[in-house]
Amino acid sequence: MNDEPVDIELDFGDDGLVPAVAQDAHTDEVLMLAYASPEAVAATQETGLAHYYSRSRDELWKKGGTSGHIQQVQEIRVDCDRDALLYRVEQEGGACHTGYRSCFSRTIDDETVGEKVYDPDEVYG
Amino acid sequence: MNDEPVDIELDFGDDGLVPAVAQDAHTDEVLMLAYASPEAVAATQETGLAHYYSRSRDELWKKGGTSGHIQQVQEIRVDCDRDALLYRVEQEGGACHTGYRSCFSRTIDDETVGEKVYDPDEVYG
Repeated sequence: MNDEPVDIELDFGDDGLVPAVAQDAHTDEVLMLAYASPEAVAATQETGLAHYYSRSRDELWKKGGTSGHIQQVQEIRVDCDRDALLYRVEQEGGACHTGYRSCFSRTIDDETVGEKVYDPDEVYG
Repeated sequence: MNDEPVDIELDFGDDGLVPAVAQDAHTDEVLMLAYASPEAVAATQETGLAHYYSRSRDELWKKGGTSGHIQQVQEIRVDCDRDALLYRVEQEGGACHTGYRSCFSRTIDDETVGEKVYDPDEVYG
């Protein structure tokens, strides 16, 4: 027994994942949306660095593991249905693999509204 | 033929839905995460009011249709993979059916961080 606060039990649904939105803790910009498994949530809590589950690679994904563009997680919030997460983060570099600060850098009619902060060819090339 | 900008083709995936995050266009607070069908995106664009797809009721869902807590959509953004949306909205009342401004009103260890803005018993009762 201990006095640690008890975590809210999340509803991971049929695929075992919950969507996780990363938001810049300083500017409140929405940076990205990815998915988290129980293992990813636990790794995020243990390390203080944002982890997700990569559906394309089918594995635990430490954000910034390749690029160095890590996310230090200040707080994890849960929504009212316990089936979505909000990571409040300090973003190193850019969240998006395309070089933009945010993955939400275009409007639906393809106008660029985001800020490019690095050259992906230099980071991933 | 017309000169309207061409929309980005979204990737609705196996279930025909994309997650849609609503963000307050004034305060940048993340208000909720729900899902949108092609019909919901079209209705949002046509009316300027946020529409989603209710997975529990299995139908098109006009946000605020019951409560009056509508979301006027200023802008729809698309992420780099074209499989997630960000609605930048003007929120009437509260986004959450629990009475809070945001559905993300608790931390994962169950600390309340959000602001209660209405009494759900008066709205839905």
